[in-house]
Amino acid sequence: MTSKTLLTDLYQLTMMAAYVDNQKDDDATFDLFIRKLPQDWGYFIANGIEDAIEYAANIHFTDEDREYLRSIRLFSDDFIEWLKEFRFQGDIYAVPEGTPVTANTPLLRVTGKRTQAQFLESALLNIINFQTMIATKANRVVLAAGDAKVVDFGLRRAQEEDAAMKGARAAYIAGAVATSNVKAGKEYGIPVNGTHAHSFVMSFPTELEAFRAYVKTFPHNATLLIDTYDVMQGANNAVMVAKELAARGQRLGGVRLDSGDLAADSQAIRALFDREGLSDVKILASNDLNEYKIAELRKKSACIDGYGVGTDMITAKPIAAIAGVYKLVEDGDGSKIKLSAEKQTFPGKKQVHRVRDADGRCLYDILALEGEAVAGEPLLQRVVKDGKRVLPRQSLPEIKKYALASVEKMPAPTKELQATPYELRISPGLERLVTDLKEKYQRGENHDS
Amino acid sequence: MTSKTLLTDLYQLTMMAAYVDNQKDDDATFDLFIRKLPQDWGYFIANGIEDAIEYAANIHFTDEDREYLRSIRLFSDDFIEWLKEFRFQGDIYAVPEGTPVTANTPLLRVTGKRTQAQFLESALLNIINFQTMIATKANRVVLAAGDAKVVDFGLRRAQEEDAAMKGARAAYIAGAVATSNVKAGKEYGIPVNGTHAHSFVMSFPTELEAFRAYVKTFPHNATLLIDTYDVMQGANNAVMVAKELAARGQRLGGVRLDSGDLAADSQAIRALFDREGLSDVKILASNDLNEYKIAELRKKSACIDGYGVGTDMITAKPIAAIAGVYKLVEDGDGSKIKLSAEKQTFPGKKQVHRVRDADGRCLYDILALEGEAVAGEPLLQRVVKDGKRVLPRQSLPEIKKYALASVEKMPAPTKELQATPYELRISPGLERLVTDLKEKYQRGENHDS
Repeated sequence: MTSKTLLTDLYQLTMMAAYVDNQKDDDATFDLFIRKLPQDWGYFIANGIEDAIEYAANIHFTDEDREYLRSIRLFSDDFIEWLKEFRFQGDIYAVPEGTPVTANTPLLRVTGKRTQAQFLESALLNIINFQTMIATKANRVVLAAGDAKVVDFGLRRAQEEDAAMKGARAAYIAGAVATSNVKAGKEYGIPVNGTHAHSFVMSFPTELEAFRAYVKTFPHNATLLIDTYDVMQGANNAVMVAKELAARGQRLGGVRLDSGDLAADSQAIRALFDREGLSDVKILASNDLNEYKIAELRKKSACIDGYGVGTDMITAKPIAAIAGVYKLVEDGDGSKIKLSAEKQTFPGKKQVHRVRDADGRCLYDILALEGEAVAGEPLLQRVVKDGKRVLPRQSLPEIKKYALASVEKMPAPTKELQATPYELRISPGLERLVTDLKEKYQRGENHDS
Repeated sequence: MTSKTLLTDLYQLTMMAAYVDNQKDDDATFDLFIRKLPQDWGYFIANGIEDAIEYAANIHFTDEDREYLRSIRLFSDDFIEWLKEFRFQGDIYAVPEGTPVTANTPLLRVTGKRTQAQFLESALLNIINFQTMIATKANRVVLAAGDAKVVDFGLRRAQEEDAAMKGARAAYIAGAVATSNVKAGKEYGIPVNGTHAHSFVMSFPTELEAFRAYVKTFPHNATLLIDTYDVMQGANNAVMVAKELAARGQRLGGVRLDSGDLAADSQAIRALFDREGLSDVKILASNDLNEYKIAELRKKSACIDGYGVGTDMITAKPIAAIAGVYKLVEDGDGSKIKLSAEKQTFPGKKQVHRVRDADGRCLYDILALEGEAVAGEPLLQRVVKDGKRVLPRQSLPEIKKYALASVEKMPAPTKELQATPYELRISPGLERLVTDLKEKYQRGENHDS
């Protein structure tokens, strides 16, 4: 069997071989952080942390993995043999899954033998970049929707199965109330939700017959898609069916609009339903929605109780990827810094401190050196010690509750559609270290130039 | 165990239950096609076909799946029992994996009992939307790169594991020569490729010591990353190391640039290497590349032999999703059409014909009714009959060879950076059917209005 351990860039293995070969396997520390917030985003919801821990704590090369590595004729037999016992035996500090953090905040801090700590890079980034991006995007959609519910409809446009699954989970953590993805429902216990397709309506001689057939099977709480032909005619058909159900002591749950002028149509349909005594029948909307379109609909006073959001939420289109990176910050030779203008890193083993006001509202975070005395509660907790998980995996409801409570406490400007980035301050100790290292590099130490 | 069968939208199951309950399980035909080409794209490389066939031929609900479906209290016990024997027993016609096709061309045509054919929708779209998008994006990058090689570096920014894996496969089919993703190398037999990271250089007192350490372990054909501190200094260090290797009968493979002015730097470094008798040392480049940036580099006569392409290729950023849909085109009541302006569908069971000139170059395709006599060779082949695969799975080298040979024969304007869409003509018979159905709908038949 191929283990997830092979889900890595080849250079992690060539570097590992060179470190072993050159007796350079001292302890090293790496930070995983995201370089910058996409435009309009105020923070990231750290997500994928739990999967990342699981991955790190279970690394090992199977016989089949090693056989494959032997077959590509790049590595020595000694190294292939050495891989047999390879495990991650270091420590990982992480912010809790679901924590809002800003750019340049370490989500994970990994310390271990250089070969081990370096090796985690590729898979950790693959996991955390995606899950954090989707949780954040979904949270933006949920905030834009206000009191209306958001449901993940992304499966068909997700970037393959794992994206659909982990994306459904991330969206749920960040405030979506349900998913259309049945497998995500089963695997994670997320509520599942759905209506029917246009093809269902087209499968019957008339729309009314299609609606009657559907509620025959689902007499309680069904949602009817009413825009296959003409949306107001569809709404009238829905009224007829709702009354037939009511006469039998049953009820229609709602209708869904998937095209047209969602604001105007939803208002007309709400008025119709209310006139007809169907105030409890909900109006749901879909059709390539995202946080901007939903905010626009609310501005126009659309009468929409719930949004099904697909493509843009499950892919974070057009952003599609966030700039999570994994950088060496310390090793046996001391603290490390990368100085290029766009890509500066913060050196040393660090802690993130969250500073709050008297009501518990977040004011800003401080990035400080480990052990430095600064205000605020520390966010990075040790989750892996000597390669073993030391904090239990949180349940999904716990994570969701924590994430939403944390968002609640974030500053209002960081939660707007065009948000102000949440602030990260740099501690005096860290500032000093950066200055010292810059001077040292300028004096030409530590490299050739 | 949860099967891939549950990777579906809930509405596929509610519709299925309603079809069964309403004795509406006649034969139906669905087309899977992509509504439109993203801007600048000339065609899609159909991809994911093989996985789609595999999926359809293996659908079944495990006991655990059915137990879960029972637990959500939406379905009758009879229906849950009925699912036990549920399989796809119909026919699938598909274009071969790797075929370039344009918008509105059926990539798959599925005929079967309505419950069965409808059910495939969600997973087929999940598979084909992503794989087709990445194959096409990668093909654009490969065409932009001309004689230079393209390597997939996308793992860390891919949207989770499956996207990294299937994306590496799609990129390879479409012309990438290798991937950094070791698991994709093992699973699919794709050549793997890699250098080292900046952190490797930073792990040694000087860059030169880092280079010497790396080539000590990989004395044949190593690639050195030379931009950690100063790129020309890095190039000079690489020259020194290359000469030391040569003196031992070994050789340096290349250098990689990951920042800065790739065009100017690559020219200066090429000149340096040539002066130093190192004409065979290759120059590779990376740093958020895509087809547009690569075309620009070629225009500036950059001396780059290979490109490592990550984020933009593995996510197709900013497009991030293509508009693949799955539409009912025929059932027991006859041909079906959807008429809304943006979302018109082509009714009936259809075939795609590829029309070529005397040299075998593609001129255009014709979308025609099944059995209609039109020019060109048919592209849709029956791959599944009565639920069983009837054409064997192609090997990856076969698919790659077929895809690249097919691209070779596409019209030049469809392969430009700002491409002209490949043409799809509509046959007289299909035109007539569309007209007839429009008139029928306008007379008010087939629906309520």
